[in-house]
Amino acid sequence: MPLQYNEYYNEQTGLTIGLKKLLFAKQSDYQLVEVYETDTWGNLMTIDGMVMLSERDEFVYHEMISHVAMFTHPNPKRVLIIGGGDGGTAREVLKHSSVEHVDMVEIDQTVVEASKLHFPGVGDFDNPKLNVLYEDGIAFVKNVKDPYDVIIIDGSDPVGPAEGLFEKDFYQFCLDALTDDGVLTAQTESPWVESYYPSMKKVFTALDELFEISKMYLSYIPLYPAGMWSMACATKGEDPLSSEVTKRIRSNPELLKSLNYYNEEVHFGSFALPNFVKKIIE
Amino acid sequence: MPLQYNEYYNEQTGLTIGLKKLLFAKQSDYQLVEVYETDTWGNLMTIDGMVMLSERDEFVYHEMISHVAMFTHPNPKRVLIIGGGDGGTAREVLKHSSVEHVDMVEIDQTVVEASKLHFPGVGDFDNPKLNVLYEDGIAFVKNVKDPYDVIIIDGSDPVGPAEGLFEKDFYQFCLDALTDDGVLTAQTESPWVESYYPSMKKVFTALDELFEISKMYLSYIPLYPAGMWSMACATKGEDPLSSEVTKRIRSNPELLKSLNYYNEEVHFGSFALPNFVKKIIE
Repeated sequence: MPLQYNEYYNEQTGLTIGLKKLLFAKQSDYQLVEVYETDTWGNLMTIDGMVMLSERDEFVYHEMISHVAMFTHPNPKRVLIIGGGDGGTAREVLKHSSVEHVDMVEIDQTVVEASKLHFPGVGDFDNPKLNVLYEDGIAFVKNVKDPYDVIIIDGSDPVGPAEGLFEKDFYQFCLDALTDDGVLTAQTESPWVESYYPSMKKVFTALDELFEISKMYLSYIPLYPAGMWSMACATKGEDPLSSEVTKRIRSNPELLKSLNYYNEEVHFGSFALPNFVKKIIE
Repeated sequence: MPLQYNEYYNEQTGLTIGLKKLLFAKQSDYQLVEVYETDTWGNLMTIDGMVMLSERDEFVYHEMISHVAMFTHPNPKRVLIIGGGDGGTAREVLKHSSVEHVDMVEIDQTVVEASKLHFPGVGDFDNPKLNVLYEDGIAFVKNVKDPYDVIIIDGSDPVGPAEGLFEKDFYQFCLDALTDDGVLTAQTESPWVESYYPSMKKVFTALDELFEISKMYLSYIPLYPAGMWSMACATKGEDPLSSEVTKRIRSNPELLKSLNYYNEEVHFGSFALPNFVKKIIE
C-alpha cells in the first residue's frame, strides 16, 4: 500500500492523495503542520490533517480571496491579512500597484516556516511592503489604530485556533478597523459539507447585520471538500458587482495576465449561487 | 475496514465514499453497472468503477446539462438525449411545457434497469412524451429524418462505448439532426484531469468549426473528479448569453422554483471560465 493522505469530510466521504514522502512535520503551540511531496499536486501542506494548499492548486484560493476584494475597493493602499501564513494571499495583494503596506497577522510562525522551506513559489516574504506579525488575529483587529482599506480573513476551518474567525464580535472589530470605503473578504467553507452550515449561516448573518453590502461567492478548489468553496465579500458601500469594478479590472491588463484563475467574467460569475447554496445562508 | 468505493482520477488522487451495501451489479454487453447504498449520498451508480450519479448530487448534473440548452432554444418541442439512461436528464427536459416529444437513445438497457430499481426519484420513465430506445446513439443520430430542436449528449467518459461521442464526425451528424435554431449540449469532462485535455480540446475544436456559436460552461459536481465539470453548449445561431434567454427564464417561475441548482444567475455565471480552463480549449 503506497503512502496516502486521506481526509474525510462527510462521515466516510473523502479525498485521497498519493504521497511520495513527508518533508516537514511540527506540532506547534496551536496545531500540527505537515508538508508532503505528492505525485501530481506538488508539495502539499496539511494542518491537523486537513489540506491547506498544494503547489498545483493554490492559485485558485489565493487569487479568489484577494482580487475580488482588491478590485472592489477603488484604491486599496493598506491591507490587513488575518492568517494567510503560507504567504499566497499577500503575494496576490502585492500585485496591485496601489498597495503601500500589508500587515499579515499569522498566529502560527510554523506555517510561515513550512511555507518558506517547501513552497518557495507561494510567498513573497521579502517584499518590503509586507509586514508579518506573529500574533492572534482577533486580538490584533480589536486594537487597530490606523484603519485598513481591505481586510482578508484567510484562516482555517472553524475548529481550533480559527474558531473565533466565525463569530459576530470578530466581524464587528473588522468593521471598525476598516476605512469608510473598506472591503472585507473571508473564506467561509464548503456548501457541500453540512456540518459547516451553522458556521456559514452565522458568518453571513453577522455580515448582513454589520455591513452595508455582503455577498457570498464561489470558487472551484479541487483539494478542498467536494471541490466547491465559498467566500464572503462585505463592504461599507462599494458594490462588488458594479461597473466601476469592471473598469478597474480592465485598466490592469498586466496584472490580469499574471493570473491563472481570476478574470473579469470569473469575478462576476463567481457571485452566481446555486439554489441549494442560497438556502444555506437565507 | 468498512466497505469503500475508491475512484482514482489522477495517478493516486481520488475520491472515497463509504458504502453500506451493494444493491445491484450486472456486467452488460457494454460495461459493468453497479449500485451501492452509501452513508451520506443516497444510492450511488458506478459504471466500470466510475461514479455516474448519486441520489444526493444528481440534481446538479441533470439540471445543468438540460436547462442551459432548453432556455437557449426559443421554443424546444422535440428533444433527443444520447445516453442519459438514468433518466434524470429526460426528467428535467420534460419540465418544459413546450416539449412535445423526447427520444432518449441509451445503448445499455442495464443502466435504465438499475435506475428504475434503485433511483426511483431520478427518472420520469412513465411520461407519455418520453420514448426510450436501446440503440447506439452514434448510429441513431446518423439516420435522423425528423430533426430535433435540442440534442443533449449525456454520455460517460471518452473510454468504452462513449468514446465516439468525443469525435468530430459525431458532432457533424448532430448538426445535421438539428433544426435551424437547434441547440446542443454535451458533457465534456473535468478541467482538473489532464488526461482528458486531448478529448476536451478535440470536442471544442470540432464544435467551433461546425457550429455558429460554441461555448464551455462549468458546474460544481462533488462526486466527479475534482468537483469541477465542463459542458459544451453549441448552437446554429441562438446565443446562450442573450437577453432573450433571461426573458425565457423569468417567464417560467414555477419551473425555476422546482430546481436546486440552476437559476438565472447560474445560467450566465456558469459560462465564466477561469484562465487555466480557457487555455485547455484555446
